[in-house]
Amino acid sequence: MERFSSLTGLLAPRSVAIIGASSDPTRIGGRPIAAMLRRGFQGRIMPVNPNRATVQDLPAFASIADLPEVPDVAIVAVPAEAAVAAVEELAGRGVKGAIVFSAAFAEVGAEGAALQARMAAAARVGGMRLLGPNALGAFNDRIGFYGIFSASLETGYPPPGRIGIASQSGAYGTHVFAVARERRLGTPVCVTTGNEADVTVGDVIGWMAEDPDIDVITAYLEGIRDAESFLAALEAARAAKKPVVVMKVGRSRLGQAAARSHTASIAGDDAVTDAVLAEYGAVRARTTEELLDIAQLATRRIYPARNTLGVITVSGGAGVLVSDAAEELGLAMPPMPVAAQERLTRLLPYAAPANPVDCTAQALNDISLVGQFTEAMVADGDYSSVLAFFTHTGWAASIASGLRRELGGVRTRHPDRLYVLSVLASPELVAGYEAEGFSVYGDPTRATVAIAAMGKFGAAFAHEPGLPPPDVPPITLPAETPNEAEAKRLLAEAGIAAAPERACTTAEAAVEAASAFGFPVVMKILSPDILHKSEIGGVLLDVATADDVRAGFALLIERARHHAPDARLEGVLVAKQLNGGVECILGIHRDPVFGPIAMFGLGGIFVEVMRDVAFRRCPFGEDVADEMIRSIKAAPLLLGARGRPPADIPALARMLARLSVLAYQAGPRLTSIDLNPVVALPAGEGAYALDAVIELGAH
Amino acid sequence: MERFSSLTGLLAPRSVAIIGASSDPTRIGGRPIAAMLRRGFQGRIMPVNPNRATVQDLPAFASIADLPEVPDVAIVAVPAEAAVAAVEELAGRGVKGAIVFSAAFAEVGAEGAALQARMAAAARVGGMRLLGPNALGAFNDRIGFYGIFSASLETGYPPPGRIGIASQSGAYGTHVFAVARERRLGTPVCVTTGNEADVTVGDVIGWMAEDPDIDVITAYLEGIRDAESFLAALEAARAAKKPVVVMKVGRSRLGQAAARSHTASIAGDDAVTDAVLAEYGAVRARTTEELLDIAQLATRRIYPARNTLGVITVSGGAGVLVSDAAEELGLAMPPMPVAAQERLTRLLPYAAPANPVDCTAQALNDISLVGQFTEAMVADGDYSSVLAFFTHTGWAASIASGLRRELGGVRTRHPDRLYVLSVLASPELVAGYEAEGFSVYGDPTRATVAIAAMGKFGAAFAHEPGLPPPDVPPITLPAETPNEAEAKRLLAEAGIAAAPERACTTAEAAVEAASAFGFPVVMKILSPDILHKSEIGGVLLDVATADDVRAGFALLIERARHHAPDARLEGVLVAKQLNGGVECILGIHRDPVFGPIAMFGLGGIFVEVMRDVAFRRCPFGEDVADEMIRSIKAAPLLLGARGRPPADIPALARMLARLSVLAYQAGPRLTSIDLNPVVALPAGEGAYALDAVIELGAH
Repeated sequence: MERFSSLTGLLAPRSVAIIGASSDPTRIGGRPIAAMLRRGFQGRIMPVNPNRATVQDLPAFASIADLPEVPDVAIVAVPAEAAVAAVEELAGRGVKGAIVFSAAFAEVGAEGAALQARMAAAARVGGMRLLGPNALGAFNDRIGFYGIFSASLETGYPPPGRIGIASQSGAYGTHVFAVARERRLGTPVCVTTGNEADVTVGDVIGWMAEDPDIDVITAYLEGIRDAESFLAALEAARAAKKPVVVMKVGRSRLGQAAARSHTASIAGDDAVTDAVLAEYGAVRARTTEELLDIAQLATRRIYPARNTLGVITVSGGAGVLVSDAAEELGLAMPPMPVAAQERLTRLLPYAAPANPVDCTAQALNDISLVGQFTEAMVADGDYSSVLAFFTHTGWAASIASGLRRELGGVRTRHPDRLYVLSVLASPELVAGYEAEGFSVYGDPTRATVAIAAMGKFGAAFAHEPGLPPPDVPPITLPAETPNEAEAKRLLAEAGIAAAPERACTTAEAAVEAASAFGFPVVMKILSPDILHKSEIGGVLLDVATADDVRAGFALLIERARHHAPDARLEGVLVAKQLNGGVECILGIHRDPVFGPIAMFGLGGIFVEVMRDVAFRRCPFGEDVADEMIRSIKAAPLLLGARGRPPADIPALARMLARLSVLAYQAGPRLTSIDLNPVVALPAGEGAYALDAVIELGAH
Repeated sequence: MERFSSLTGLLAPRSVAIIGASSDPTRIGGRPIAAMLRRGFQGRIMPVNPNRATVQDLPAFASIADLPEVPDVAIVAVPAEAAVAAVEELAGRGVKGAIVFSAAFAEVGAEGAALQARMAAAARVGGMRLLGPNALGAFNDRIGFYGIFSASLETGYPPPGRIGIASQSGAYGTHVFAVARERRLGTPVCVTTGNEADVTVGDVIGWMAEDPDIDVITAYLEGIRDAESFLAALEAARAAKKPVVVMKVGRSRLGQAAARSHTASIAGDDAVTDAVLAEYGAVRARTTEELLDIAQLATRRIYPARNTLGVITVSGGAGVLVSDAAEELGLAMPPMPVAAQERLTRLLPYAAPANPVDCTAQALNDISLVGQFTEAMVADGDYSSVLAFFTHTGWAASIASGLRRELGGVRTRHPDRLYVLSVLASPELVAGYEAEGFSVYGDPTRATVAIAAMGKFGAAFAHEPGLPPPDVPPITLPAETPNEAEAKRLLAEAGIAAAPERACTTAEAAVEAASAFGFPVVMKILSPDILHKSEIGGVLLDVATADDVRAGFALLIERARHHAPDARLEGVLVAKQLNGGVECILGIHRDPVFGPIAMFGLGGIFVEVMRDVAFRRCPFGEDVADEMIRSIKAAPLLLGARGRPPADIPALARMLARLSVLAYQAGPRLTSIDLNPVVALPAGEGAYALDAVIELGAH
């Protein structure tokens, strides 16, 4: 595959030119050279500067044309106009990659955007990959390559390690690098993408997924520009069993983006990104610390497909604290087998042997007890993850060495488990524990969050391909936005059932339809121009007699004329009223990046007020639809809470999967679909759309 | 007041006896002596040991009787039986306080509990305060007093500071101390309460509230044993404007406690503790780090009553990250005034001047810009809190001193604001920033959480006393659990209205009642023995004709006989059916610690499935009831979401406040009240209980 290998010239070059090279090691054109000299870059470094014979003691060249060889990568650190010319020239010479520091492009307005487009076009034509413009740059410490001008290098370089950083923000990407360095976590490769005229953060993630020396990928996202490369990168990472930990900002703007359809206004692109990350098993971190907590543990490369946590603690309180956190995170903490509990109680009468296993401070008086307890947890409890809370006792001279020996013994006998220590100790002691295979966190809650993430990765890595999306005959979208009856006809072709109904142009036809369906019926205005009927009183429920049908017909026509005098009126829709089910909403909206997105939630209140919804990129199979339905908080209502009969979830899942295929096949003209409500009848009785709105964009 | 001053002998003693004193400084009876000698305890230390003339070079005494003076406090470090005898003897000699390390009391079973009761009784009779038993103990570093045997002292003592630790767990309390010490946060007083035979964590919080040298109180809670002292302590802390930060474990056990009534089973005591903490403005931390993050910032003693946050950043991404966190925390981030924004843009064209104010890395080239920007945020933006994100640039030699100077200037001119820095820097540099009044956090999200907490404290400290609970005539509880009609009569006496209804013993009486109210009506089984009628089909809605009333009467009687053959049947209740309102649940359950607790939520699904409820200790006024109603997530449904008319919230609030007074006055025999549903009609039309269940305990 290696679809991302075109970035290798950029990120692992064998030779570098610096356009706008400076002798001052703190200037933007000087920092990369100083850093590469400092870190011993093995390849040739070729400063380009028309005014100097040498730059930082290296022979300099007057122009790109004067370069004695074609570099793998060129760093461009000259003003915008000159940068465009430089990129054009570099591409012409066959350079594989350019890192453009220069600013004043798309980020400052239309004129800059035009300049950026010119630059990108030149690179594309020349087959050159372009990082930036307006990028802080990238480094690859393994070869001493520093195509970056960050001040963070003033305080040090990355220690050894196997964590990559892919960031859309230069300041934030190097912040993560600096925090990691303080924590002694090695981030040998850090790439910040700036304006993303060519190389996107997805490309970078993908390149790291293929890089044999990176095990864990951390990413900072503000918004995805190119779905294709981003999804391919996430899939490449999953296939390579490399965890991707994501910091995505902009949660609070959820719902602010102006969106045309009802469903889209609920979605917001942040929720969609969430759904996409979950689909590929990438884990979203809430804070920078969490990002690195998860990355730190992930470097152990142990990802339990079915994660269970056993906690051994000298503080009952800390045990409860961890249990609280684990439950919130959905991390299982099953109890120890009863026989093992009894054995532990014989060893130490006041221990609490269930899980958390509280060995109490007593165990510290005979440290071999800690070993026996932990061994029992792994051998008998069979936990895939063990968290040992020993607080300051992990530091105490009288305890630390015994603790290391005892826990180390268990680890040697069972190396396939995750071992996490929550201790307070000197940096040296912590480094010792880490070297022996224990990941150390001072705070037990943070340890628990990291452990839970390993299970999410493991589940994603182990995940078998699910059911294929169902076969749905391709539909032909009409020329104009369809009315409700037409919309339902289209949906019926895809196997999505509505309640029995008939379009009626006279009151007598309505009475006839109602008599055929049986009373009560629902009556609705039928017009392609009135999308949200209930707002103008255009829906009548519980119409129970023929006389009421006649009166209702007149009333609906009157209301439509009054509230929407210009709307085309096509009569009244009469439908059988379905009682006794659970009302749901199924929807589609078109995300500008990820295309059609399906939504599932319960009746309007749950969606609009409680925001209790599930999203998923289209298309998908019934297994995914079933997961979506069961994932909402209110799912118990469908499963039979409060004495209700369980709803027909297979029918709902079938409808949702078919809807996803329909939306996927319909192409970009389909703006949104709202099936609101869909009534899910009791198990075996099906699910029916009571209303359907399909919105189309221009041809 | 000084109601907690009886703890002073325990926690700030002038002389100490150690019963079971040991020469070994690592033994339980040796550690306190070693620590006091090390920290220069000023008072007399009197080891008691029958076998030695000296202990750790101090003259020892053979017995309590041999003590040359009555110590303020005695530390008891002998086995359980001997400890009881020692306490009896100490109390007899007039000692003011005892700290009992000894274990094997209530924590090991009934026999130990009896022993503990004997010990507590002896102390009480002698007027002696007792900490423990099974307590790790307490320290007060300001006077060098160490009545504690924690191994955490092996690695150091607290640095100077003004944070107190009150903990029900010894291991966890000293864990907090050790983490704080690593962070250079001073916790001069740490008290762990063990089995709480006498002194509770509430007493300790109260004592710290009255201690002039403690500014901030951190507390670890597993469960409150004594509501009275706990509430008095929280009130004392609030009155003294001392923040209380709480770690309360056991969230995940919510709902597990077996509770008799419907409402109680929803509550669980964790939610009640939450409500009590919120009532007094104590802030609950989710993690140990958060506990200390909040305590750290609180030592600045700036608690904005109306907190607003201004963010200045060199990374746009970090700005968005903070905005996300602030919105989730309910911390306002209003934009800068337009004129000020224009001025800043003139200073630095590429800056984003709204809020977050992104001064970009450009500002670092002329560091005076950072000063001008920050000054504008305080002077023009008038933010009460300023968060400055400078990541690793706060460490760079070229920037740090200028940054300190510029930010320091703003702080000197406006010392009444909270200044928080998010920088990565050496411990020395961080200490320098801290000394100049900037609280430093590496992680910007953690900084934001701490800032938000200061506003919660400020709001609580500024809070005026609210409305008094309404006058409600005292009700007389009946001898037996009342049926629905009786329950509604009782509630009516308190001014709580039910829908018009009539108890009917014959079908014809039911028809007459229905005709009087007007159709449709609701019909329900009337029996004191059938509490949850709907589960047996004992409720009929939409009964629309006289014939249906007759049929319904027969059906209900038949169902009652079938499902509950032993129940006393008192007929059928006929009530007017109220349509068009919002269904709510109002409830009372009796918490074993805090007494009657009121609950508010929307109709059953929202309470049972979504857990969207508000709790409050009874009694309270209509202002508090109004807050409760508006605090639930689904509140928009009452305020007019989805085109509904707004509900009559004043009527709901009146009902809830009256219910709280009724429950308070009713005394401990009242187990629970369920008003489910209550229909809140549109504004001005009132709120009516449609069903009422009152459960009473034994006399």
